[in-house]
Amino acid sequence: MKILIVGASGTIGKEITRLLENDHEIIRAGRKGADVQADITSETSIQKMYEQIGKVDAVVNASGGANFSPVTELTPELNEKGIQSKLKGQINLVLLGLQHMNAKGSFTLTTGVMMDDPIAQGASAAMANGGVKAFVKAAAIEMPRGIRVNSVSPNVVEESWDRLHTFFEGFEAVPASRVALAYKKSVHGLQTGMNYEVY
Amino acid sequence: MKILIVGASGTIGKEITRLLENDHEIIRAGRKGADVQADITSETSIQKMYEQIGKVDAVVNASGGANFSPVTELTPELNEKGIQSKLKGQINLVLLGLQHMNAKGSFTLTTGVMMDDPIAQGASAAMANGGVKAFVKAAAIEMPRGIRVNSVSPNVVEESWDRLHTFFEGFEAVPASRVALAYKKSVHGLQTGMNYEVY
Repeated sequence: MKILIVGASGTIGKEITRLLENDHEIIRAGRKGADVQADITSETSIQKMYEQIGKVDAVVNASGGANFSPVTELTPELNEKGIQSKLKGQINLVLLGLQHMNAKGSFTLTTGVMMDDPIAQGASAAMANGGVKAFVKAAAIEMPRGIRVNSVSPNVVEESWDRLHTFFEGFEAVPASRVALAYKKSVHGLQTGMNYEVY
Repeated sequence: MKILIVGASGTIGKEITRLLENDHEIIRAGRKGADVQADITSETSIQKMYEQIGKVDAVVNASGGANFSPVTELTPELNEKGIQSKLKGQINLVLLGLQHMNAKGSFTLTTGVMMDDPIAQGASAAMANGGVKAFVKAAAIEMPRGIRVNSVSPNVVEESWDRLHTFFEGFEAVPASRVALAYKKSVHGLQTGMNYEVY
């Protein structure tokens, strides 16, 4: 398969790449230093990326961010990052990518544990995660040409524990390599409309 | 209680108003013909509305829309209505309303059945619903001064059946008066972070 991995240089993206690169042609996309440049907050950038790489059999997205902020300090402006990046960025990868996807291909997006097990300062990220999960479930039933769409919801990963543990005290961090398996399941499997929880 | 009902003239908003108006001071907000004008897609309009009405004990939102479109025809532009109205409009009612909310007050937003039981052309609305539901669950744990936040997820309502039945074949429509009860439960009760399904 020809697989586009957006955010391939990130903590999870690297593990996904490692897991898939022996068996597939991988195209790494990212904001810099990748095979192809892509900023998912820009429709133009997504379009350009798809035009450069031609048809693909799978798109995996491991990128997208949101601001962390106490809800009392969360302004519409701060919330906008989650909207533009983690929510719209991911959904636009699907909407703009459909015509570049081969029949029976798949999109795999990323949500996250905060929507199911909320943490302080996580409301904006949770919002984006919940939006992506619901979009995936609803879009799956009318995808054309046997194309599938799923998401993976990772717990906090061990590799980020030093940086993030104060947000996630009491959570049981998972290795990014375990999270990567869920993306492989999505790409190789036949399921659609799923949100694979790796908690 | 002093209760602001946004979208009070809509099918569900009317029933919420009917259910609460005997026991409470109701302020009806809407795009036209209401006690106070409000367009939830505009931050300025939300701000102005809150400044006009002073402190409140509850905000109930029964407004917000999204475009219906097959996912193959859903462009980022068409998806934007759901983002700006049903998703950000509702979340901004909370973010911008917090300082106008009395202690122990509540926000009650609206999601919808399509995120749980997807229908054709419903992916954009489902996205918005899922985002609101996850935001509510996450924001609830850090709301200040005992303020609560919930959402109500209505099935298609009987009053809209003639107009919408082709989208919802096989669904069991519920009377808007039954949906309104869930908003009353949210306003009068003590629960927070809930998404009340009225299916």
